[in-house]
Amino acid sequence: MTVSVAIAGATGYAGGELVRLLLGHPEHLAGNLQIGALTGASSAGTPVSEALPHAPELFGRTIEPTDAEHLAGHDVVFLALPHGHSAEIAAQLPEDTVVIDCAADHRLTDAGDWAHWYGGDYSGSWPYGIPEMPGHREELAGATRIALPGCFPTGATLALLPAVAAGLVAPEVTVTSVSGVSGAGKKPVVTNLGAETMGSLRAYNTAGRHRHTPEIAQNLGEYSEEPVSVSFTPVLAPLPRGILTVASAPLAEAAAGTDTAAARAVYEEFYADEPFVTLLAEGVQPQTQWVLGANTCHVQVEVDAASGRLLATAAIDNLTKGTAGAGVQCMNLALGLPETAGLPTTAVAP
Amino acid sequence: MTVSVAIAGATGYAGGELVRLLLGHPEHLAGNLQIGALTGASSAGTPVSEALPHAPELFGRTIEPTDAEHLAGHDVVFLALPHGHSAEIAAQLPEDTVVIDCAADHRLTDAGDWAHWYGGDYSGSWPYGIPEMPGHREELAGATRIALPGCFPTGATLALLPAVAAGLVAPEVTVTSVSGVSGAGKKPVVTNLGAETMGSLRAYNTAGRHRHTPEIAQNLGEYSEEPVSVSFTPVLAPLPRGILTVASAPLAEAAAGTDTAAARAVYEEFYADEPFVTLLAEGVQPQTQWVLGANTCHVQVEVDAASGRLLATAAIDNLTKGTAGAGVQCMNLALGLPETAGLPTTAVAP
Amino acid sequence: MTVSVAIAGATGYAGGELVRLLLGHPEHLAGNLQIGALTGASSAGTPVSEALPHAPELFGRTIEPTDAEHLAGHDVVFLALPHGHSAEIAAQLPEDTVVIDCAADHRLTDAGDWAHWYGGDYSGSWPYGIPEMPGHREELAGATRIALPGCFPTGATLALLPAVAAGLVAPEVTVTSVSGVSGAGKKPVVTNLGAETMGSLRAYNTAGRHRHTPEIAQNLGEYSEEPVSVSFTPVLAPLPRGILTVASAPLAEAAAGTDTAAARAVYEEFYADEPFVTLLAEGVQPQTQWVLGANTCHVQVEVDAASGRLLATAAIDNLTKGTAGAGVQCMNLALGLPETAGLPTTAVAP
Amino acid sequence: MTVSVAIAGATGYAGGELVRLLLGHPEHLAGNLQIGALTGASSAGTPVSEALPHAPELFGRTIEPTDAEHLAGHDVVFLALPHGHSAEIAAQLPEDTVVIDCAADHRLTDAGDWAHWYGGDYSGSWPYGIPEMPGHREELAGATRIALPGCFPTGATLALLPAVAAGLVAPEVTVTSVSGVSGAGKKPVVTNLGAETMGSLRAYNTAGRHRHTPEIAQNLGEYSEEPVSVSFTPVLAPLPRGILTVASAPLAEAAAGTDTAAARAVYEEFYADEPFVTLLAEGVQPQTQWVLGANTCHVQVEVDAASGRLLATAAIDNLTKGTAGAGVQCMNLALGLPETAGLPTTAVAP
Repeated sequence: MTVSVAIAGATGYAGGELVRLLLGHPEHLAGNLQIGALTGASSAGTPVSEALPHAPELFGRTIEPTDAEHLAGHDVVFLALPHGHSAEIAAQLPEDTVVIDCAADHRLTDAGDWAHWYGGDYSGSWPYGIPEMPGHREELAGATRIALPGCFPTGATLALLPAVAAGLVAPEVTVTSVSGVSGAGKKPVVTNLGAETMGSLRAYNTAGRHRHTPEIAQNLGEYSEEPVSVSFTPVLAPLPRGILTVASAPLAEAAAGTDTAAARAVYEEFYADEPFVTLLAEGVQPQTQWVLGANTCHVQVEVDAASGRLLATAAIDNLTKGTAGAGVQCMNLALGLPETAGLPTTAVAP
Repeated sequence: MTVSVAIAGATGYAGGELVRLLLGHPEHLAGNLQIGALTGASSAGTPVSEALPHAPELFGRTIEPTDAEHLAGHDVVFLALPHGHSAEIAAQLPEDTVVIDCAADHRLTDAGDWAHWYGGDYSGSWPYGIPEMPGHREELAGATRIALPGCFPTGATLALLPAVAAGLVAPEVTVTSVSGVSGAGKKPVVTNLGAETMGSLRAYNTAGRHRHTPEIAQNLGEYSEEPVSVSFTPVLAPLPRGILTVASAPLAEAAAGTDTAAARAVYEEFYADEPFVTLLAEGVQPQTQWVLGANTCHVQVEVDAASGRLLATAAIDNLTKGTAGAGVQCMNLALGLPETAGLPTTAVAP
Repeated sequence: MTVSVAIAGATGYAGGELVRLLLGHPEHLAGNLQIGALTGASSAGTPVSEALPHAPELFGRTIEPTDAEHLAGHDVVFLALPHGHSAEIAAQLPEDTVVIDCAADHRLTDAGDWAHWYGGDYSGSWPYGIPEMPGHREELAGATRIALPGCFPTGATLALLPAVAAGLVAPEVTVTSVSGVSGAGKKPVVTNLGAETMGSLRAYNTAGRHRHTPEIAQNLGEYSEEPVSVSFTPVLAPLPRGILTVASAPLAEAAAGTDTAAARAVYEEFYADEPFVTLLAEGVQPQTQWVLGANTCHVQVEVDAASGRLLATAAIDNLTKGTAGAGVQCMNLALGLPETAGLPTTAVAP
Repeated sequence: MTVSVAIAGATGYAGGELVRLLLGHPEHLAGNLQIGALTGASSAGTPVSEALPHAPELFGRTIEPTDAEHLAGHDVVFLALPHGHSAEIAAQLPEDTVVIDCAADHRLTDAGDWAHWYGGDYSGSWPYGIPEMPGHREELAGATRIALPGCFPTGATLALLPAVAAGLVAPEVTVTSVSGVSGAGKKPVVTNLGAETMGSLRAYNTAGRHRHTPEIAQNLGEYSEEPVSVSFTPVLAPLPRGILTVASAPLAEAAAGTDTAAARAVYEEFYADEPFVTLLAEGVQPQTQWVLGANTCHVQVEVDAASGRLLATAAIDNLTKGTAGAGVQCMNLALGLPETAGLPTTAVAP
């Protein structure tokens, strides 16, 4: 088998991470996976040596324009574009091309949610790229259209899902997710300058304004008898990569008296066979450094008896398990490759 | 009037910040406030040029040992010592010496809480150094024993107090406080090394294990009809100074329908006359950089109608308003000086 | 005396630091110095609460447009504008207005240098704002037009001047200056984004391309018998503020055998009366944290006998002693106020 | 072939990076390379899940004590120990065991240099692990004792070697190397705390005191007709990983008039076949982010005609190409594996 892979939006941070992972993929090293078109919008025409200076292996190339013509003829096309662009591109690609969308266009399953949170035409949902959500791995195997999750929903879902699915908590979750600055993308705006973000912390899109809110609710709600209410607060912190999710919810009445050991048992069983989710030893809190550049999610769960709440924390690299790593994981599933191929679980620490 | 001020534990981060603020205090500039003994434990005997290299004005001096002998004869003594040391030192100082304790020894008003959270002998509580808590400013005026608040309780209290006092929220608050590394102090442990903390995020003392939890509950409970349950999660982030508090609670049944405008009105009135608390304009989130080195707390409040929760955020500099600045503010009150003397409200940004 | 001060370009980083220092100036606290117009270009019309969120004391105001009309009627006008704008504005202000320019327009004394490095019309040089350069303090006293130095030249000059003036070194200096990101200003370009600058180091404008090169040569050359050749390399590092200058030069033939003690003696004498330059104790290297927010320059000098070079290092805060602090220092001299008024020497450390 | 590899000192930063690279090595993925004993001193007995939390693949294991007994029976033994420990351990291992020392014990070829810089018994030099130095690759192929270079010498050597070897520069080089904090190791000392290193810059071991100085001189001197004088200044900057080397030297008299194009031609030819050294396009300066986690060195060279100096800059990851990556590269050579096996050239950027 030879597979050719294109990346639309290769010069953004998600695109650059896809390039890194694909170059290290064993099928690429074996000559079976070729990196085809790398495209960009304003960066079209730029030498890769300038656009992707972290990837010297590709320095002879040039960024091509993002359009169906340049993306045609590939077996896999990653779309790392601003939301709203994917549907149009995807419609022009053959149905058997594996199209993996890093944007939000095909994540929400409810047209009303789409209208409320994004507006504009709703293009329907695609198989959703968190294989660790029960039932989803099967749906992703062999899929030709895949919607990758948002980075915050990945952390929040993996942190809370076992508790929600087991009915341990009431469906009112509070999530504070602290994120590195690459999550804000490469757009040059004053608020994302180094001088504005180093040495500072700030919340943003607070009080239900962040578009990842309905996605978290959708994921958790899929395994809950009642709709899940999500109070979500993202916080920007001075590091390049990493998301630490701090999530909590009241213990469900039916689960009153659940202690940390019981909660851990639920999580252990839930994630027993997952190659990319690690429940840390009791007493050890996740640290984003321990997952930097890896496709791993480190999770911890406890019960705070005094406040009657279950607390779940999770660390991911927003560009790896949060985006590009999930993309390669889904590509592997779509192509029938081993799910873990090319995906480091060991982090670049410190 | 001439006042002499000693600092016990001057070579830690709180001590160093006290030195900075006192050197810039107008009474010091006018020759009326003298900086007396600067003491340390293992650092005793060290030249100030080595121990406090940020304070060249004092470079001729030497750090003295921390004992009653060296602290005697001052009008004001700041204790920036590990908890457990203050009571013993204070007992050896005259009753009319103004003793201001940066540690936890005299914060909790309930002996049972002390026993549960700290253990060992309980030394009783002193007037508590958040003048913005109604009733406390009066108690601090002229006081000779003052317990400064913890840095996390300062942020959490100022964020939530107006809502709690007005009965806007149910007494079940969730607080995630993201902190810079100076809050961990100057003790050389591996987990606080630069290589362990830069480029990383982690929660610690989670699920009700952090000793600031009962202090937050005590502060809010003072203005609530019911005891306040606090779910508190501190997070360590890679910046030297700053705490961003993200706090939320369900709207109280009696306050159902409260919207952001109504919540803002409550906060505006509550803080109308406070020189060191600024309610930011609607839509502007606090940023720790905007309070760096200042004695200011920036606050924002919103209602998230979808989740039915009130969200309050606050930014402080943990060493200024969070410790040393509060100390100088309380000293001013104790001595009858203008409360704002020597306390910058303009930050060192960016 | 009542003085009113305007700041043109108040919303940039230098402008914001001027605001901070002026608000803390004793003449402002005493009611004798009023902060007048705060102007901006694209930010004109913006509330100060949004444009200068670190300065709550001024939150009621609005940024005005940068033009002669709005700057007129002040005793002192600071120009914190991109280079090329100052001459035109200054020409429209009365001759007895104290105009202090933070930009490069009036720094170079040689028209040919100006043409070579900047191009366009040369507007002549103004008294140059490093009072520590022998002869300059006198020139600045009572001046009505002042050119503030560049941030890199301030560090390099204070590091090397005593050695050059004493003839200790040959006139071939090598300067590597590592700078925080605020030095790059507030312009939103990709290369200055947080994600591009955190966790990374890079040199820029290398090999004689940085416009501060001729300014360093000019400053040192003023005290050297021969022209001084400068090999200057600026490096961008992930911190908001601070410049660490590493400068070296071969010992002059006539000074062969000079050792560290002898070099220190020269520096000690040179800076004996300077309030803002501190020669650190032997063996202690400057650290930018120790001068953060202070108007201080910490200096160290050594002789590396093996390589036959004198090594001088210096730490400044690029926005304080490197720009705005120097501006206030010069304003004090121009107005006949105590030179040190309103200028902290104690740093915001850590 | 099956190879077993032990790491002595596995819990330090170099050890942890060796673990990462070996786990991703294709021979490991193919089942031909087994990771054997992971040893530590004070960390012996600690679960790997606590000692190496970035490597979940090894979480079932425990750190063993560092002694000959536990290191015996492996084909390859990496020594990531403080200097002074290697000779003793190596003497107890069979001669055909490949021993790769990350410390300084066997780097210097001159007993007098050893005595001067390190003192104590000199254990002789081993084949030196910079394969890019002409002649060394051949010496490393099949070697059973290998001394890895220091991280600073790696950057400085790769930056300057082509110029020195081609006689472009006089043998008087000035090197300022700005380093991330992991280079200081995992020892808990106050000066390496996050609060001391974030937001700050400082030089250390200045003026010929850093022990990497003679190593740089030795490397360059090997290709120079005259001994090379090195003025070396290391600077600590607030990032976890990365070294940016800024090196310059006067053009040699015989090379007067050399311009940037000519210098680039020399470098291009010198590094034409090197898989891990990339000469960047003209005008592009190396950035440590572009080599993070990669075994790559990015180099740039220019001539500054005005000062008559050649300027060479280089970026490496101090833990990858600077230590552990070089170790795996040398292991590959020693075992006859492809030199590039298991060594990423694409970086974890941003």
